[in-house]
Amino acid sequence: MLPGSHRAAGLVDDTALVRAMLQVEVAWARVLGTPISVDGWVPVLDPVEVEAAGNPVLPLVTALRARVPGPVHTGLTSQDVLDSAFMLLARGAVERASADLARVAGALARLAGEHRSSVMAGRTLTQHAVPITFGLKAARWLVGVLDAAGELEAVPLPAQCGGAAGTLSRAEDPIASATAFAEHLGLVWPGMPWHTYRAPVTRLGDALVRTCDALGVMAADLLTLGRPEIGEVSEGAVAGRGGSSTMPHKRNPVLAVLVNSAALQAPGLGARLHLCAARAVDERPDGAWHAEWPALRALLELVVVAASQAAELVEGLEVHADVMARRAGEAAADLLAERGGGTDPGAYLGAAETFVDEALKRWKG
Amino acid sequence: MLPGSHRAAGLVDDTALVRAMLQVEVAWARVLGTPISVDGWVPVLDPVEVEAAGNPVLPLVTALRARVPGPVHTGLTSQDVLDSAFMLLARGAVERASADLARVAGALARLAGEHRSSVMAGRTLTQHAVPITFGLKAARWLVGVLDAAGELEAVPLPAQCGGAAGTLSRAEDPIASATAFAEHLGLVWPGMPWHTYRAPVTRLGDALVRTCDALGVMAADLLTLGRPEIGEVSEGAVAGRGGSSTMPHKRNPVLAVLVNSAALQAPGLGARLHLCAARAVDERPDGAWHAEWPALRALLELVVVAASQAAELVEGLEVHADVMARRAGEAAADLLAERGGGTDPGAYLGAAETFVDEALKRWKG
Amino acid sequence: MLPGSHRAAGLVDDTALVRAMLQVEVAWARVLGTPISVDGWVPVLDPVEVEAAGNPVLPLVTALRARVPGPVHTGLTSQDVLDSAFMLLARGAVERASADLARVAGALARLAGEHRSSVMAGRTLTQHAVPITFGLKAARWLVGVLDAAGELEAVPLPAQCGGAAGTLSRAEDPIASATAFAEHLGLVWPGMPWHTYRAPVTRLGDALVRTCDALGVMAADLLTLGRPEIGEVSEGAVAGRGGSSTMPHKRNPVLAVLVNSAALQAPGLGARLHLCAARAVDERPDGAWHAEWPALRALLELVVVAASQAAELVEGLEVHADVMARRAGEAAADLLAERGGGTDPGAYLGAAETFVDEALKRWKG
Amino acid sequence: MLPGSHRAAGLVDDTALVRAMLQVEVAWARVLGTPISVDGWVPVLDPVEVEAAGNPVLPLVTALRARVPGPVHTGLTSQDVLDSAFMLLARGAVERASADLARVAGALARLAGEHRSSVMAGRTLTQHAVPITFGLKAARWLVGVLDAAGELEAVPLPAQCGGAAGTLSRAEDPIASATAFAEHLGLVWPGMPWHTYRAPVTRLGDALVRTCDALGVMAADLLTLGRPEIGEVSEGAVAGRGGSSTMPHKRNPVLAVLVNSAALQAPGLGARLHLCAARAVDERPDGAWHAEWPALRALLELVVVAASQAAELVEGLEVHADVMARRAGEAAADLLAERGGGTDPGAYLGAAETFVDEALKRWKG
Repeated sequence: MLPGSHRAAGLVDDTALVRAMLQVEVAWARVLGTPISVDGWVPVLDPVEVEAAGNPVLPLVTALRARVPGPVHTGLTSQDVLDSAFMLLARGAVERASADLARVAGALARLAGEHRSSVMAGRTLTQHAVPITFGLKAARWLVGVLDAAGELEAVPLPAQCGGAAGTLSRAEDPIASATAFAEHLGLVWPGMPWHTYRAPVTRLGDALVRTCDALGVMAADLLTLGRPEIGEVSEGAVAGRGGSSTMPHKRNPVLAVLVNSAALQAPGLGARLHLCAARAVDERPDGAWHAEWPALRALLELVVVAASQAAELVEGLEVHADVMARRAGEAAADLLAERGGGTDPGAYLGAAETFVDEALKRWKG
Repeated sequence: MLPGSHRAAGLVDDTALVRAMLQVEVAWARVLGTPISVDGWVPVLDPVEVEAAGNPVLPLVTALRARVPGPVHTGLTSQDVLDSAFMLLARGAVERASADLARVAGALARLAGEHRSSVMAGRTLTQHAVPITFGLKAARWLVGVLDAAGELEAVPLPAQCGGAAGTLSRAEDPIASATAFAEHLGLVWPGMPWHTYRAPVTRLGDALVRTCDALGVMAADLLTLGRPEIGEVSEGAVAGRGGSSTMPHKRNPVLAVLVNSAALQAPGLGARLHLCAARAVDERPDGAWHAEWPALRALLELVVVAASQAAELVEGLEVHADVMARRAGEAAADLLAERGGGTDPGAYLGAAETFVDEALKRWKG
Repeated sequence: MLPGSHRAAGLVDDTALVRAMLQVEVAWARVLGTPISVDGWVPVLDPVEVEAAGNPVLPLVTALRARVPGPVHTGLTSQDVLDSAFMLLARGAVERASADLARVAGALARLAGEHRSSVMAGRTLTQHAVPITFGLKAARWLVGVLDAAGELEAVPLPAQCGGAAGTLSRAEDPIASATAFAEHLGLVWPGMPWHTYRAPVTRLGDALVRTCDALGVMAADLLTLGRPEIGEVSEGAVAGRGGSSTMPHKRNPVLAVLVNSAALQAPGLGARLHLCAARAVDERPDGAWHAEWPALRALLELVVVAASQAAELVEGLEVHADVMARRAGEAAADLLAERGGGTDPGAYLGAAETFVDEALKRWKG
Repeated sequence: MLPGSHRAAGLVDDTALVRAMLQVEVAWARVLGTPISVDGWVPVLDPVEVEAAGNPVLPLVTALRARVPGPVHTGLTSQDVLDSAFMLLARGAVERASADLARVAGALARLAGEHRSSVMAGRTLTQHAVPITFGLKAARWLVGVLDAAGELEAVPLPAQCGGAAGTLSRAEDPIASATAFAEHLGLVWPGMPWHTYRAPVTRLGDALVRTCDALGVMAADLLTLGRPEIGEVSEGAVAGRGGSSTMPHKRNPVLAVLVNSAALQAPGLGARLHLCAARAVDERPDGAWHAEWPALRALLELVVVAASQAAELVEGLEVHADVMARRAGEAAADLLAERGGGTDPGAYLGAAETFVDEALKRWKG
């Protein structure tokens, strides 16, 4: 019911989590020498049993053992399964978001290039400053998105494999088993378990939040520029979108509103992951781990949805360079006050176009 | 999949929200003179339409208009419907949580009374201080829970009714309509719409967070007291609960862990509501409102689940007063150092028992 | 160096804290029968000793004992002193803020009355909706400020008095002593110590954050309305304020910017207080208490400064009702679309003026 | 008055900030061809002027211009100066913290090596699990600290240089000027201004928070292990430290308490930086930038202080391997339940020692 959540359908919901947990158990079973095929099997877990165990792993293992003759799960702890499963979900979500961030970047690069020299009023502390170009604005958003996407894709996603207390006490050949397990899952084996060392989670969280920051600042700017009194951009018209339940004329900038909304949600979720990292006590913690799950899922969903919405938003953006130019001309006295006066804002752009080129150079990579 | 979420089943999920929205539309239709019966009807809303509208109200109204001949929704804005619906969900969740908080308080009062004079070591900054009684500990938790419950129940839950921009522009007789609407819903009419004045939401949020604080500090204490080296309490044994996927002997304090986990989640969610309140700009905001929904639902669910878990936890708690007494005796030298020595910690309890009586007096109210 | 911090000078800084701690020790000494006069004495505490003790109380008591012959501090714990001292700081800060919030409310009430019927465009999700009046906007801010101020002033500020582990183990007559102590300080005696029951702190924090919310949403609206393209309000001109280090023409809305900034800071600080409440374990906690202090001081300072800035901002606000009217006229087609057309936005105000009256009624209270 | 703040004396306080701002102005004056020597000069800025300007730069420039004949500041905006100055403060703070983190790592490496095989009870969800070694615990903390330190040191610290609206409109040769400016300051020139692209700040913030996480989880563990009932470690005794104002025998684990406290503070401050990044609108934002400063300073101070405290804590730590061994022996039945029984916990360590070696290998680099 979160508007846009269908864009992340199947990526981080309960079914996706159970599937990912199964994938983890299958990989470990392979290490144990038990061949399993789960096909499309997704067991329904009894929520009372989930709570009794404190997490959904034990009920899943029970269901799996009822189905599979050989040894399964032996040597793992539930946190091994759930942490690894979350990393699989993260991988899928990051892949999806990356594709959309690339679309955002591509569209911004096009806008930056097209409007490299489209003069508009610069605004600081809400007031007119010196002139800029719309290309420069797009270039700045572009750099933010490129960096965020790069950092997000670079986050290492490790397998978790430590057994009851992080010693792999029950594994025959611990290091070989863990390495093989990670390899089966396509995840990194970081050399040690990370039950209580949560930087793998906070790094991911920070990159997700940073992605929301980059998309959010763009959305916030677009909301301002799209105000009727400013009118320098419009969100692309799509039949049925942005309508009001009461005002027929209205075309709400729905995508920008939703992306902006995501950026208000992300920082607190990221902070929770850090808090949980700082409270990941003993060999496996007494609540901090459980508090991570909903935050991580919410962040993954936010980023997938926001990136997809942002792609549609930027690809469909209507830029009214004529309005920008007209306003800059009318406000020339203010825009050129620093220069000591003048009437042509386009003659006082400093390095605006150079910075556009710099951003485009990074985009071409 | 959040362990324990079944305890809040049907209270704040998507179906509950649609039902609540329908209830709101029915109340307004009544104001408009359109009699509607929705019975068990719960339309499935197309997520693409939900996103296009920016919220689920427009698709719901479309479905409703296809079903009902007379005027419906006319004069309301989507925020009227959704804000009011959230207040209905809040009412249900608060009622449920209150019942469980009363159970928690009752059980704590019993423990405080029974252990009014059960001597144990006081602990400050993790080290032994002067002696206290377990009754005093229970009394302190009790006061926290009583206050939180009282504050939660006292939060006014208003109907939202403002129309497109908070002027009730389309209503025939605005004040009378709003008043009747609120009355039909059993909500308060606060005299004005609150589209951009979000204290109704932050007050609720703060009370929910404070409830998690009160339950969380108790859970954290119980986790410490239940460590095997301390062993002064145990979580009640229930067949199948607290088992480990790998260690047969283990009895994890699952309920305390989960309540503790809730307390780590709540503060950041409450902070988001405040942030959204501070960003509730214009006549209806451009993203801050949308960012409220998931935080409010998550908080309501957390409190319902945690209160229910806490009730079971406290009702089933095993208190090992003998261990407490033995330890206090062994540590008497330290516990009585302030007094200048002695061997009977029970002779140096200060006002501990008086404070127990004070708490019990409040409980009896 | 925080712009505006001089507005809170002397209220919550280190010297103020030491003075408040002395005031607490004096009150307790009086309970002990030791008359003390500290006059203007403010001892300088050695930071190494402060850290060694974990807080500034022990070094202060050492200095005090070197100066005063009779018994001092005996029976108190450092948390008694510091918690009570913070409540004294809170009292001073709340008093100061209240005076300024009353100024804000008075100025808003004047604006609401004067502009009860000043028509302007309503804006929702950044786009034109139906017409409103500027008086309605002012009335909504007014209700927010009135409620916040009322809630802030109503927060009970209790004395802390519990001794080493909350039993007042060393006090001769615990309840009488605590009651007299609180009375000497002009604080409430809540019947029990609250070393680990932190609702007194979170309630205060929540009210402080809610105050920032109320001021912040107003500031954010004023920033939008004061954009040069909208130009419906201006921050009052004061010589030397709002200048730019580079652009001579510029008049930045400095006060609104700073108030807006405060509202972005407050929610996270309030959340920290809740987190600390949930982690206030044992009889006195192992870090959560220490993490409260800077958050509480920062919040008190933010609110004092923001309320003072807001008073100046609203009292000096220039409202351009002519611009509002002109724009509403030009946008009449959109503003009246809900009504089915028309040319006079002033004829479609719904209950706007009634809501203004409602708010003014509350203000007159 | 924050216990331990003297450990960061002179690094991020107001004087340090003014000095850093002067250093920035000197570097830019050099670009402008104005040789300046400020020696020890630290002007006192009028707080009323600071507020009027919205930040301390304009008053500083006024003071500087009264002192220096040639052109200064011309072409910069106040954000250029303040952002660059904060990066200088960050450099100093990070250098200091790094040195202490290296001490922490060195001490942890020593402990990990010495106690590679010191058997102790593993604990998960507060209950006994399988055996581990204390070396493994130290090794896990070590990996956390090493990673955090590495990430903190790797954060690029860029100069800010954009002029009024990020176009360097007034600079003769923008790119050359910016590059020379950054070089004079020893900061990175990132190719473009970052007035509204705040990843340089959030990256730094995230690394600072992650450092607090790594130190905090260690402190939290030490607090548990140092409880009198567990007694497996003690904070090193230092004359005068950890005393109680009321209980003569007490030795509070002050350093661990304070480090733990830092970890509760950091996440919310980091979240604020993200929020400000998402709200860094227009060419320079209307409040979000101002809200960054206190969070960044607080985070820098927290990390410097916590790293220094942690170094002292770990270097002085007393490890009671005999207690660990005795407890493990007594709890052997539980610790070895997974294995199906046994009496020698030291015979069931899995890969514990291998993981110690892995961590030490990383430490040696």
